[in-house]
Amino acid sequence: MRHDQRQPDQLRPIRIQRGFTGAAPGSVLIEAGRTKVLCTASLEEQVPPWMAGQGRGWITAEYSMLPGSTAPRKRRERERLDGRSSEIQRLVGRSLRAVADLERLGERTITIDCDVLEADGGTRTAAITGAWIALVDCLAAAAAGAPAQPAEFPLRASVAAVSVGIVGQRALLDLDYREDSAAEVDMNVVITGTGQFVEIQGTGEQTTFTEQQLGEMLALAQLGARRLTEVQRAALGRFWPLAE
Amino acid sequence: MRHDQRQPDQLRPIRIQRGFTGAAPGSVLIEAGRTKVLCTASLEEQVPPWMAGQGRGWITAEYSMLPGSTAPRKRRERERLDGRSSEIQRLVGRSLRAVADLERLGERTITIDCDVLEADGGTRTAAITGAWIALVDCLAAAAAGAPAQPAEFPLRASVAAVSVGIVGQRALLDLDYREDSAAEVDMNVVITGTGQFVEIQGTGEQTTFTEQQLGEMLALAQLGARRLTEVQRAALGRFWPLAE
Amino acid sequence: MRHDQRQPDQLRPIRIQRGFTGAAPGSVLIEAGRTKVLCTASLEEQVPPWMAGQGRGWITAEYSMLPGSTAPRKRRERERLDGRSSEIQRLVGRSLRAVADLERLGERTITIDCDVLEADGGTRTAAITGAWIALVDCLAAAAAGAPAQPAEFPLRASVAAVSVGIVGQRALLDLDYREDSAAEVDMNVVITGTGQFVEIQGTGEQTTFTEQQLGEMLALAQLGARRLTEVQRAALGRFWPLAE
Amino acid sequence: MRHDQRQPDQLRPIRIQRGFTGAAPGSVLIEAGRTKVLCTASLEEQVPPWMAGQGRGWITAEYSMLPGSTAPRKRRERERLDGRSSEIQRLVGRSLRAVADLERLGERTITIDCDVLEADGGTRTAAITGAWIALVDCLAAAAAGAPAQPAEFPLRASVAAVSVGIVGQRALLDLDYREDSAAEVDMNVVITGTGQFVEIQGTGEQTTFTEQQLGEMLALAQLGARRLTEVQRAALGRFWPLAE
Amino acid sequence: MRHDQRQPDQLRPIRIQRGFTGAAPGSVLIEAGRTKVLCTASLEEQVPPWMAGQGRGWITAEYSMLPGSTAPRKRRERERLDGRSSEIQRLVGRSLRAVADLERLGERTITIDCDVLEADGGTRTAAITGAWIALVDCLAAAAAGAPAQPAEFPLRASVAAVSVGIVGQRALLDLDYREDSAAEVDMNVVITGTGQFVEIQGTGEQTTFTEQQLGEMLALAQLGARRLTEVQRAALGRFWPLAE
Amino acid sequence: MRHDQRQPDQLRPIRIQRGFTGAAPGSVLIEAGRTKVLCTASLEEQVPPWMAGQGRGWITAEYSMLPGSTAPRKRRERERLDGRSSEIQRLVGRSLRAVADLERLGERTITIDCDVLEADGGTRTAAITGAWIALVDCLAAAAAGAPAQPAEFPLRASVAAVSVGIVGQRALLDLDYREDSAAEVDMNVVITGTGQFVEIQGTGEQTTFTEQQLGEMLALAQLGARRLTEVQRAALGRFWPLAE
Repeated sequence: MRHDQRQPDQLRPIRIQRGFTGAAPGSVLIEAGRTKVLCTASLEEQVPPWMAGQGRGWITAEYSMLPGSTAPRKRRERERLDGRSSEIQRLVGRSLRAVADLERLGERTITIDCDVLEADGGTRTAAITGAWIALVDCLAAAAAGAPAQPAEFPLRASVAAVSVGIVGQRALLDLDYREDSAAEVDMNVVITGTGQFVEIQGTGEQTTFTEQQLGEMLALAQLGARRLTEVQRAALGRFWPLAE
Repeated sequence: MRHDQRQPDQLRPIRIQRGFTGAAPGSVLIEAGRTKVLCTASLEEQVPPWMAGQGRGWITAEYSMLPGSTAPRKRRERERLDGRSSEIQRLVGRSLRAVADLERLGERTITIDCDVLEADGGTRTAAITGAWIALVDCLAAAAAGAPAQPAEFPLRASVAAVSVGIVGQRALLDLDYREDSAAEVDMNVVITGTGQFVEIQGTGEQTTFTEQQLGEMLALAQLGARRLTEVQRAALGRFWPLAE
Repeated sequence: MRHDQRQPDQLRPIRIQRGFTGAAPGSVLIEAGRTKVLCTASLEEQVPPWMAGQGRGWITAEYSMLPGSTAPRKRRERERLDGRSSEIQRLVGRSLRAVADLERLGERTITIDCDVLEADGGTRTAAITGAWIALVDCLAAAAAGAPAQPAEFPLRASVAAVSVGIVGQRALLDLDYREDSAAEVDMNVVITGTGQFVEIQGTGEQTTFTEQQLGEMLALAQLGARRLTEVQRAALGRFWPLAE
Repeated sequence: MRHDQRQPDQLRPIRIQRGFTGAAPGSVLIEAGRTKVLCTASLEEQVPPWMAGQGRGWITAEYSMLPGSTAPRKRRERERLDGRSSEIQRLVGRSLRAVADLERLGERTITIDCDVLEADGGTRTAAITGAWIALVDCLAAAAAGAPAQPAEFPLRASVAAVSVGIVGQRALLDLDYREDSAAEVDMNVVITGTGQFVEIQGTGEQTTFTEQQLGEMLALAQLGARRLTEVQRAALGRFWPLAE
Repeated sequence: MRHDQRQPDQLRPIRIQRGFTGAAPGSVLIEAGRTKVLCTASLEEQVPPWMAGQGRGWITAEYSMLPGSTAPRKRRERERLDGRSSEIQRLVGRSLRAVADLERLGERTITIDCDVLEADGGTRTAAITGAWIALVDCLAAAAAGAPAQPAEFPLRASVAAVSVGIVGQRALLDLDYREDSAAEVDMNVVITGTGQFVEIQGTGEQTTFTEQQLGEMLALAQLGARRLTEVQRAALGRFWPLAE
Repeated sequence: MRHDQRQPDQLRPIRIQRGFTGAAPGSVLIEAGRTKVLCTASLEEQVPPWMAGQGRGWITAEYSMLPGSTAPRKRRERERLDGRSSEIQRLVGRSLRAVADLERLGERTITIDCDVLEADGGTRTAAITGAWIALVDCLAAAAAGAPAQPAEFPLRASVAAVSVGIVGQRALLDLDYREDSAAEVDMNVVITGTGQFVEIQGTGEQTTFTEQQLGEMLALAQLGARRLTEVQRAALGRFWPLAE
C-alpha cells in the first residue's frame, strides 16, 4: 500500500471544472489529488510571422507555477523563464499539436496557459490532460459554442498524460510529490485516447533502469491513460469532439 | 441605474473562500463580480538583508495577472515586470504594512502573492481586501492555527480597498471594467476598518476634477469600505484578530 | 518654524532656466531648494504603432535619477527600470496628457525626459512643474519659435505639482528630503492653473490619516500650486500659451 | 539504403580527439559525421551554495551552438538562454550525474561545456558521449594525471547517447540533420556501458507511435550504444576508469 | 579656417564649474563648446569583493548620454548598456587609475559618473578632463575639505584628454560633431600634465592612415593637452594637488 | 630572451586552417602559439533595416570566449554581452570594413563570428587576422567558389593585427598571456598589407608611456604585420584576392 492508501496502479482522484473563469474561451481547473492547474485557452486570428501565409494554424503553451503553489514559496519567474518551465511548456505544446489538424485549424493561434495553483507532483501531466479539454472548449466557442462536428473539428485524437516511476524498486502510477521525491526513476508518458504514444520522457534520478522496469512502467502508463480518457469524456459530455 | 442594475453606491457581490489552496498558510480566493483574485500568504523566518538585526519584520506583495485573465490574452510578464504591476504591488505592500505592527511580527517576512485569475475591473482593490484575510490566516497558522489573541497579534487594524469614479458626471462606487473604461476620474481608496485613510490615488483620465467631485467620491469610498469590512469580519468569523 | 526657517505653507525657492541645453527643443532646469531636475522635451513626427492612423498625438515621459544626485550614490538603472522610477514617469506622462489636446497635437510624439541632477525631496513634483514648461517650449519650437496662439495651441491648461505632508502632526507644504523622511503622511498633488485636480496620491507611511488631515493637506496643495503657476507664468513671459 | 549509404543500424563515423585545447583539464573534440562538438571539463574546488557542507560534489553542463555552426547562421544566445539549449544542457548534466559517485567526488564542481562547432544532427547525443570522456580526463588531471584507480574513481559506469527515429516508417539509428528533419518519431536514448537506461526521450513529431515501433527503436539504441562504448574505450586506452 | 572659425590647432572654449551639484563630494560641469558633461565623484568606504583585503583602493567610471542630449533623442539605456557607452566608461576608468596611487587611496572605491547633458562631439574626452577635477574634489572632501598635501595625496599626475582627426586631409584639434561626422581618421588621446601618454585610440573611419598623419595628430594632441592642463590648474586654484 | 625563447621582435608560430567547419562559407581556425580562434563568416542577402535601399553592404563581427578557453573557467555570456567582448567585436568589425568596398559588396551582410577556443593572449589580434581570411573565403564561395577577380572583388586591401607592448621597459612583439599580464603598456595595432594603419589602441596599464616608446612599439607592429601578411598570402594561395 502506498502512503495515501492507493494501489500501485491507482490514480489520484481527478476533478475537472470547465468554465472556471470567463474571460478566456477555454478555462479548465483540473485537480489530481492536491495538485491544481488552471488551463486557459485563448484564440488569436493570426499566426506567428514565421508561419504566415501557409494556411496552417499553430498551438502553443505556456506553463508557470504561482509562487504560492508550493512551500517554501517559489520565486516568481519575472526576469527569465526557468529551464524547467521552458521544458514543460514545450512538452505541453508538442503534445497538443501531435493530435491537432493544423491545416483544418486555419491561420489562427491557440495559446494554452497552464498555471499551477497548487503543486503536489504531476503538474505537467495534469496540465496536458486539462489543456486538451480547454482546447476543445476554445475550439467549440470559436464555432459559436456548438458541440463539435467530428468530421470538421481540427483535432484527430484526444490526449492525456500520466507519470509513472520506480519507487523502492516498485513501479507505481501517478506519483505525488512525496513519492516523486523518493523515486529512483521518473517517467512522464503522453498517450492518445486510442493508446498511441505521443511522448515518453524517462529519467533515472542518479540511477539507471532496465528494459523490464521500462516495460512495467509503460504498462501502468497505458492503464492510467485509459482511465484519464474516460474522465475527459465524462467531463466533455456532448462536447466530446471525436467520432467513436 | 448602472448597466448591471446596480445603484451608484452599490458594491458588486463579494465572495471570499479561505483555504482555497493548501500549500501556502494563507490562501484566499476573492471574487468581486466577475473579478477573481487568488491571494496567498507565505512566511519566511528571515528578513531581507537590509533589515537584518533590527528585530522587525517585513510584509511585501507581488501582483500579476494570468495571461488568460483577460480577452484578448495578456502577454506573460516573464522578461520584466511591467510598470502597472509594479505600481500595484507596491500599493498592496504599503497598505498591509500600514496596519501591521512590524516589531511584534519579529524578524520574519510575509509575502502576499496576488494573482488575478479573471479581471473585470477593481483587481487591485480586491487584491488588498483579500490579501488582508490571507495575512490574518498566515499569521494564525504561524501561531499553531489558534484564533488570534488581539493583544499580541501583529495587526493594529483591518484594511480594505475600493474603487470609485466619475462616469458620465456621476460618482459611482466599485467600477467594473466597462465603467472603468468610460470613467472620467478613477480613484482607488484604501481605508481601515475604523475609517482612517491609508492611501488615496485619484487620477483624471485625460481630464480634471473638482473639490466637490473629490468629496463625493471619498464619501462613496467610506461607505464601500464599511461594507467590505463587514464581509471580511464574516469571512474570518472567530479568526477575526482585532479587539472590538 | 521648520528646520530651514520656512513657514508651514511656504515653498522652497524656485528657479527655472529655459534653454539650459540646446539639442532638445524644450530644455528646462528647474530647482526647488537643492532639488535640481533637467526636463527636456523632444518631438518625433510619428506616434507609437498602437496609435497610428487615429490623427491623435501622444505625450510620454521618462524619469531617472543620476547616480550622483544622492548620497550615498544611487546604483544606475541600466538593467531594469526600478519600480519607483516607473511609477513616477507614468505619473508625469498622465499629468501632461490631462491638460493637452492630443487631437490638436496631430500624429506626433513628444517625449519629456526628467533627469534628476540633485535630489532633496520633491523630485517628482518639480519634474511635473518643469516638464510643462519644456513642453510649451518644444511646441513653440515646432511652430517656428513663435509665441503660442492660444486658440490653436495643443494645451488646454497649465499644470504644476507640489508635495504636502503631515510631519509631527502638522500639515506642511513642499517637504524637503529631511522632512519627507520623517513624514507620517506624504501626498503629491497635481493641479491645473485653474485649480482643478489632475492627480492626488496620498500615502500613510506605516500609519493612517483622517478626513480632516486630508482637508488641511489639500488646502496647502492648492495654495502651493497657485504660487507655482505664477512662477511658470513669469518664466514663460510672452510664451505663455493660454488665453486669460 | 540511406541517403549517405548507411545501413539502418549503422552509426556515422565517430572521431574523438582528447586534449584538443589546453586550458581546461578535460577537452574533447567529438565528431559524428559532420557534427562537431567541443566538450571541455573544468573543475572548481567548491560546490554551489545550496549544496555546501554536505560533503558531496556536483556535475553540471552547459550547451550552446556557435552561430556559424549552422546555415543559415544561428543568432547568438547572448540575452537569454533559449528553451532548446536549456533542455539539452539539463539532459547532459543529468546523464553524467547518473553514473557519477558524487560523495566520492567530494565538495567540488565539474562544469562540462559542450559547444557545437558544426551541427548536422545528433548534437546532444554527441555532446553526452564526448562529455563523459572530458569528465574522465578532468578527473584524471585532478588526480595528478595518473590513470584512474577504478575502486576510488568517482564514476560508477560509462555513459553514451544515441538518437534513433522512425523515418518513412522505418526505424533508423543515428539520424543526421536531413533524416531528422523528415522523421516521424525522434528519440534520444542515454545508456550506460552495461546497457542500463539513463534517459529516454521520444517524441512524435506531429504524429504518434506504437509500442512495436518503440521496441524497434530501443533495440537499435542498445546496439548503437554498445558501439559507442567501444569507441570511448579505445579513445581512453589506459585511462579507462572502470573495472572490467 | 574651420566652420566655426577656429584654427586647426585651436580648442573650443572650455568652461569648468566645480560644485555644480551638492550631493556628491565631487561635482563638475565641464563644457567644451556646446558639449556639456556633468562629472560627479562619489566615495564608498569599501572595495569590490575581488579586491578586498589587499589594502588598495579602486577607481571606476560610468558614462551615459541623457536622452535629450542629442537630436534626434537617444533611446534611454535602461535594459542594457550599449557597446559604445561600455567602451567609453572603461576608457575613463583606466585613464584615472593610470595617474592614481591606489595603495595610498586605501580600501575605498571612487565612482565617477559622467553624464552627458549635451553632445556636440568630444564627450568622452571632456568626460576624462572633467572627471579628473571631480576626483580631486572628492579626495579633498574626504580629507575634510583641505587643499591637498601633494606628498600624501593619492594622485601622481593630472590627466586630460582631447580628440584629433584628419578631416579633408588636414589634421585638426578638438573635433565637434560636424567635423567628427566628416572625419577620415578619428583619434582620442589621453595625456598627463607632464606630457606622457596614457591612452591612444585612433581609428580609420572606413579608411586608413599613414605614419606621417599619425605624427601630425599626436603633435596636435600634445598641444591641446597642455592647454587643457592649464585650464584644469586654473579651475582648481589652491586645490591643485600636485607638487610643481 | 623571452620566457618562451623568442626574440623581442618574433611572432609566435602561426597556423591557419581554412574550411575547419563546413556549414559556414568561410571557416578558419587560426592559432598563434596556444591561442586558438575559430572565425566563421556567414552571408545573408539583406542588410540591417537602417541601411536598406542604399545599395551598400555591411560587415559586422561578434566575439566571444568559450567558457573552457581559460582557466579558471570563464562564466558564459548568456545574460548580457560583457564590456570587453563588446569592445573587441566592434574593433574587429571596424577593421574589416576599413578595407572593404561596401558598395561593391551590394545589399548583403557578412557576419564574422570569432569564437575563442583557447586563450593565451592576443585573441583579438588573431581574430582580426583570421577573420580577414574567412571573409575572403566567404566572398569566394558567394562567387561560386572561383578565385577572386581583384578588379571586381569587394576588398581593397588585406588586414592583419598584432599586439605589442612594453614589458620590463623593453618593447616586445606579440605578447602571450604571461607577458601581457606583466606589461606596463599594451598596444593593439591593425595594419593593412600595404603598411597603412587602420586602428591603434595603446593603453598604459596603471602607468604611462613616452613618445619614444610609442615609436618603438609601432616599428615592431609594422614588422609583425608584414610577416602576418605573408602568412595570410600563403594560406590563401591562388585565392589571394588582391592585385600585386
